[in-house]
Amino acid sequence: MERITTITAVRERVRRARADGVRVGFVPTMGALHEGHLGLVRLAAQRAGLVVVSVFVNPTQFDRPDDLAAYPRDLAGDEAALQALGLAVPVVVFAPPVEEMYPRAPLTTVSVAGLGEHLCGASRPGHFDGVATVVTKLLSIVGPDLAVFGRKDRQQLQIVRRLVADLDLPVEIVAGPTAREADGVALSSRNRRLSVEGRSRARALSRALRAAVEVAEEARMQGRAVEPGEVRAAAAAVLADAAVDVDYLEVVDAVTMQPTTAPITPTTPAVLAVAGEVTGVRLIDNVELGDADDEARLLAATS
Amino acid sequence: MERITTITAVRERVRRARADGVRVGFVPTMGALHEGHLGLVRLAAQRAGLVVVSVFVNPTQFDRPDDLAAYPRDLAGDEAALQALGLAVPVVVFAPPVEEMYPRAPLTTVSVAGLGEHLCGASRPGHFDGVATVVTKLLSIVGPDLAVFGRKDRQQLQIVRRLVADLDLPVEIVAGPTAREADGVALSSRNRRLSVEGRSRARALSRALRAAVEVAEEARMQGRAVEPGEVRAAAAAVLADAAVDVDYLEVVDAVTMQPTTAPITPTTPAVLAVAGEVTGVRLIDNVELGDADDEARLLAATS
Repeated sequence: MERITTITAVRERVRRARADGVRVGFVPTMGALHEGHLGLVRLAAQRAGLVVVSVFVNPTQFDRPDDLAAYPRDLAGDEAALQALGLAVPVVVFAPPVEEMYPRAPLTTVSVAGLGEHLCGASRPGHFDGVATVVTKLLSIVGPDLAVFGRKDRQQLQIVRRLVADLDLPVEIVAGPTAREADGVALSSRNRRLSVEGRSRARALSRALRAAVEVAEEARMQGRAVEPGEVRAAAAAVLADAAVDVDYLEVVDAVTMQPTTAPITPTTPAVLAVAGEVTGVRLIDNVELGDADDEARLLAATS
Repeated sequence: MERITTITAVRERVRRARADGVRVGFVPTMGALHEGHLGLVRLAAQRAGLVVVSVFVNPTQFDRPDDLAAYPRDLAGDEAALQALGLAVPVVVFAPPVEEMYPRAPLTTVSVAGLGEHLCGASRPGHFDGVATVVTKLLSIVGPDLAVFGRKDRQQLQIVRRLVADLDLPVEIVAGPTAREADGVALSSRNRRLSVEGRSRARALSRALRAAVEVAEEARMQGRAVEPGEVRAAAAAVLADAAVDVDYLEVVDAVTMQPTTAPITPTTPAVLAVAGEVTGVRLIDNVELGDADDEARLLAATS
């Protein structure tokens, strides 16, 4: 596994590939790679002749120092997992030290109005500015043809799509699916920090979302629109039974990420998003209700 | 003169040049080109094999609609002036319509903390966010190897240098000199809007700066540091005699653009910056006191 730690070297690697006519794919991660990340890497490898996977726990997107300190790090394990994929195209790990990315306290911030106000943005002040800024920086450093982001971090995905469009960054954003365990739990690097008891309780999040989807699908089969309050109530009932400290449980417009009370139909898609703490570990999940993946609407959205 | 109006076409033009091993220089302008701009274009042509000159009056950096409406536009004249330079390297004009640059109301903002708080930032709310955002966007669209900015817009120059460093944009920023008329008046597209009377009064700005420089140089010859208050007073006296409606007259740190009261020496460089309205036209000018062009200090500065 080829590891690169400097900005100059990764630029040179990408420049050489491009000079040979190779398309470059990019998967930005914070490491502690799991099957969800690996799926995004496979997706990139299907569309590119070189895949750069960044492994960088970005301090500016953490609002709590203890959360940053506890975030799992396992670069050797990450490289072994990428190696074990046995992909036909070369994979490069870009793992810069913090001083390489932030040789000085940054003064520049990229922010996307509106999309980051609710959900994780409301409970993690500055989080999405940190994300938007480091993504802009990583895209500028790597300069890929395409970059893959997971749907599990749906709000992040929408913010990245929008900043790429607004700033005309020369990259195609590809959305990858949320990977789940057999029992429905969304894969997350933070799952590693769950106790056996916590792992069991964590199931409540995806069970709550599934209950909501069932309500929405029942309504669709009956040929009627479904109220956000109705699907939310189904999910809330599941969470009430479990010992999950709910941070938010919200139906939001799938494009603008604003709370919505409009009936959900295929043409007014929505996302039910949940965040909660399980034995001290913050977990998030979301599910699309209706035809949520409408990029044209994202680009037309105003704050 | 080759004119390009779409993002796709300018990217393709730059891609082809680069594929031929040609270095690309970029001079972003708002048009109404004068000898100051043309000097920046010459500077770019000395260091690149293709020069892209953008002509785009960016609405998001204007805080007053009347100022935006009155800003001079003369694309045919601009192209003639560039043609008349007779440069040895090809020059391309990138003149996108507003709808090409902003097909939707943008939600994304790039901002640089601290550097834009004072001087023009204080009197033109949102101005530097508009500048930082459109510069990021233009650099992303054109993708040049180097970009030239004038020292007349000193605060803008510092902001651009800093955002390029913070976001690791792959471009070299080159600073060009302020061009002046024989009587000292700094060239500006806004000068076109001055009446004969206004043009005469406008001389007070550069005369004021010159008076300040004389005080600073006298102190240097005497081997002593000079107080910011002392140089400012010399400039203020000149402006008081002239009918200039002074917006600001400030000694600022040459790197951080923060007001300073520290004695000016070659190792603590400063800039005296002035803005004022002359018969309804806003003019700015600035002069470096001490060794002002210390990029290393810019990069070490924190807000």
